[in-house]
Amino acid sequence: MKKVVIFGVGLIGGSFARALKHAGAVATVVGMGRSSASLARALELGIIDEIGGDMAQALLGADLVLVAAPVAQTGAILASIAPHLQPATVVTDAGSTKSDVVAAARAALGGKVAQFVPGHPIAGRETNGPDAAIIDLYQGKKVVLTPLAENCAADVERVAAAWRACGAILHTLTPEEHDKVFAAVSHLPHLLAFALVDDIANKPHAGLLFQYAASGFRDFTRIAGSSPEMWRDISLANQPALLHELDAYLAQLTTLRAHLAANDGAAIEGVYANAQHARQQWIEAIETAEIPAAPTR
Amino acid sequence: MKKVVIFGVGLIGGSFARALKHAGAVATVVGMGRSSASLARALELGIIDEIGGDMAQALLGADLVLVAAPVAQTGAILASIAPHLQPATVVTDAGSTKSDVVAAARAALGGKVAQFVPGHPIAGRETNGPDAAIIDLYQGKKVVLTPLAENCAADVERVAAAWRACGAILHTLTPEEHDKVFAAVSHLPHLLAFALVDDIANKPHAGLLFQYAASGFRDFTRIAGSSPEMWRDISLANQPALLHELDAYLAQLTTLRAHLAANDGAAIEGVYANAQHARQQWIEAIETAEIPAAPTR
Repeated sequence: MKKVVIFGVGLIGGSFARALKHAGAVATVVGMGRSSASLARALELGIIDEIGGDMAQALLGADLVLVAAPVAQTGAILASIAPHLQPATVVTDAGSTKSDVVAAARAALGGKVAQFVPGHPIAGRETNGPDAAIIDLYQGKKVVLTPLAENCAADVERVAAAWRACGAILHTLTPEEHDKVFAAVSHLPHLLAFALVDDIANKPHAGLLFQYAASGFRDFTRIAGSSPEMWRDISLANQPALLHELDAYLAQLTTLRAHLAANDGAAIEGVYANAQHARQQWIEAIETAEIPAAPTR
Repeated sequence: MKKVVIFGVGLIGGSFARALKHAGAVATVVGMGRSSASLARALELGIIDEIGGDMAQALLGADLVLVAAPVAQTGAILASIAPHLQPATVVTDAGSTKSDVVAAARAALGGKVAQFVPGHPIAGRETNGPDAAIIDLYQGKKVVLTPLAENCAADVERVAAAWRACGAILHTLTPEEHDKVFAAVSHLPHLLAFALVDDIANKPHAGLLFQYAASGFRDFTRIAGSSPEMWRDISLANQPALLHELDAYLAQLTTLRAHLAANDGAAIEGVYANAQHARQQWIEAIETAEIPAAPTR
């Protein structure tokens, strides 16, 4: 690709730029964003080649645009892009929710929505900003694309090829499937971890409790160290699916509470053993999948 | 100490023996337990010096007895010890719950209960058996003693000194305080993690869900990889405190569900931000506490 434009040059967008450059998959990366300090730092670090000024100029001749800003800003960014978007440019995003992004893209891009291929790289760290951007953030990680009915195959392939150049493994889901899956395995666990730490922190003897919290608690609550603003936005953006998963979990806890109140050790052990077994199988499947393929001869 | 007797020569008991020997704090360690294979292996590894046969003989001249078997066996082991327990011997345990252990000790030891000093080392791994036992499992870790009104100071100090020789940091709580604290920061998180994995594993599209579970899910559910039998026993042993904490958490989730259903972003962010801040403070406090003291000159 000759030119890639990135909105948001932090961990996600910056690592995408670094990986593409490292793979020799792009000639020029233009950075766009609200923070001129971040853009200047990204330029200084060699993550981007230029800071985009005027929107029309920035988008001129772009092969690919990645929107990697906080998900609540996606609609506004797409709306600002729309009037200047040329037919040969493909736009993608990196948001953690997809149904809301698709709705925002339809509203913002109108007749140009066919040029938007929604995406979600399953990678992240607890650091952010241009200094956090690294070449191999996406190496061996999944990227889920949720193509629209309007997308043409060549545009979807352009986005997929860019992520493959970053070392990612491509998956495809519908936006609705995506949001259901991530409500269960990501958004609900975040909500539960935040809720537990808040619950404990609000108790009068919180200091005593935290004093005895150990490594199990630390790992269980690690995701409660994530950005409250980002997770507020994700929770709201995926509200229907998250409510559905939360209700299923509340029903599960209510059943388990009844077993505990009845001192029903066999029923409790049944739940615990099923969980331990399922998790063990999952860990083994991950470990198998992570064994690198033998080199071709 | 001349002689220490350990019931259960796995990770907890075996590491205690190894650490005491390494510190030169004991001359002879006698191993007791139901599994003759484990005892033979512990002897082969040098964790113990002898396999105890006859109970009276094993306890003869013992300075300290550690009961490190699964917590559900504690009562039976103490009952088998009781008739042969000499006045100069102190008994302690390593159970994750304390009120139930104290009740079991009073029932089993009767008039000799003053010789029993309950304890709980806050250390563990996901491995077990004699081969998992290591010298430094307790190095820098907390051990909570929950002394009884009947205990004399010298007996409590004998147990404390043994754990200090293992590198542990001693804390004291009442059995009731202990069980309330660990219900909140350990037992409830385990129940929640088991419940989440079981919930997901029972869904018809579990395979799809597990395929997209990533590092956040892995850490959140790590404790669901623990022994189902052990955590069934802990859940039942600490049932009243665990029910209390579970009810508080269910109330918290119900409130958060209402915020989410109402799309109340400010209220959701309030919970998430309070949690994130409290966790950050906790992590900083741990890291400060873990900085080793400067060597004395």
